[in-house]
Amino acid sequence: MPARALAVKALAFDVFGTVVDWRGSLIREGALLGRRKKLKVDWAAFADAWRAGYRPAMARVRSGELPWTRIDDLHRMILDGLLVKFAIRGLSEDEIDHLNRAWHRLRPWPDAKAGLVKLKRKRIIATLSNGNVSLLTNMARHAGLPWDCILSAELVRHYKPDPETYLGAADLLGVKPQELMLVAAHKDDLHAARACGLKTAFVPRPREYGPAAKADITRDPAFDLHARDFNHLARQLAR
Amino acid sequence: MPARALAVKALAFDVFGTVVDWRGSLIREGALLGRRKKLKVDWAAFADAWRAGYRPAMARVRSGELPWTRIDDLHRMILDGLLVKFAIRGLSEDEIDHLNRAWHRLRPWPDAKAGLVKLKRKRIIATLSNGNVSLLTNMARHAGLPWDCILSAELVRHYKPDPETYLGAADLLGVKPQELMLVAAHKDDLHAARACGLKTAFVPRPREYGPAAKADITRDPAFDLHARDFNHLARQLAR
Repeated sequence: MPARALAVKALAFDVFGTVVDWRGSLIREGALLGRRKKLKVDWAAFADAWRAGYRPAMARVRSGELPWTRIDDLHRMILDGLLVKFAIRGLSEDEIDHLNRAWHRLRPWPDAKAGLVKLKRKRIIATLSNGNVSLLTNMARHAGLPWDCILSAELVRHYKPDPETYLGAADLLGVKPQELMLVAAHKDDLHAARACGLKTAFVPRPREYGPAAKADITRDPAFDLHARDFNHLARQLAR
Repeated sequence: MPARALAVKALAFDVFGTVVDWRGSLIREGALLGRRKKLKVDWAAFADAWRAGYRPAMARVRSGELPWTRIDDLHRMILDGLLVKFAIRGLSEDEIDHLNRAWHRLRPWPDAKAGLVKLKRKRIIATLSNGNVSLLTNMARHAGLPWDCILSAELVRHYKPDPETYLGAADLLGVKPQELMLVAAHKDDLHAARACGLKTAFVPRPREYGPAAKADITRDPAFDLHARDFNHLARQLAR
């Protein structure tokens, strides 16, 4: 379908992995901490383990086993376990909190900021992340991301891929679901958004899980657009 | 108290009247419509009547008489009555909707944008308005207001001055109530925020209700800061 025919008024972006390179950023933060505190840690393994704890932790909230818990607190629960597992000792509470907030300081993929600036010219651009509002707000300030609006799972107290997140975003932005496009690097997120009537743009991030990992970057005809990066997406949506 | 001692991490702004000149903007929008549709209307009286309907409409929500209703819909309920009262006839549904969304296009006071840019350098700046998220998001795009985050009564489904609005804003921003400062032109808003533990800055807007109206612009020792405009506030908070 030509992008013009999509009649998209607003774009909602998955953030972790789609806009920011969580893995590279966490490895960098870990290395900085390790040098300062003379720690010997495999920070890539540490970053992967932290991220691997994320889905199971959210699943406990989604199933009702845990009450609503924001990502900052889920990240901290996982981190407390990893400090033991990776034998990271001698950190003060302030240092642990600072490390936990590495997620507030994640760095964008090289194209992200410039692409968002272009996309913002014609359409509303908002986050639609499982990250909490303060995490996303601090990240935007830190990375210079020009969001019109910070939308988060926290606002509807449901985590993606629950339908409340996608439909809640359209409702808050005052657009119909089919006027909102989810931009994401993850097919499960896009399929869930599509099931709610949203438009979808797949922007694969083949290095999200590191240079050795094999990411699924194949096209899927279910999605409305496929783009190599945000600049490419902006060109398609400008047509 | 020296501003430095306030330890404010984030600023939350009342919007209607404090950031934007709703009255001047509505009169201008009315005059444009009037010329196009050959209507003879006292647009200043019309603007004042629209705004006068706002508090009673919110009171019906706050009391529970109405279920949660966003400001766009309250504005439309009031507008439908005013179209009859002011004998404004011959508008299509699209034209009425466009007029209702004049609130999405309100213009900032002359100092607002430059002042916000300065304030944003050191602290998070967010809206904290009874306006709904899409209204505030569209207004920011239209007026070039550089918010870090759009916070609204809509997110907690309580209207100011209910305490849920002030405490909910601090919670979403991840700061303590005493680390959040409400900036407002209205003393009742500031007193309610102060009762929740927020810091307060009074920025009077003597022309909010027009050149003839007498606004209460006297200092009140209960507030932490008094500023002539946002640039003046930025200077005080930079100390």
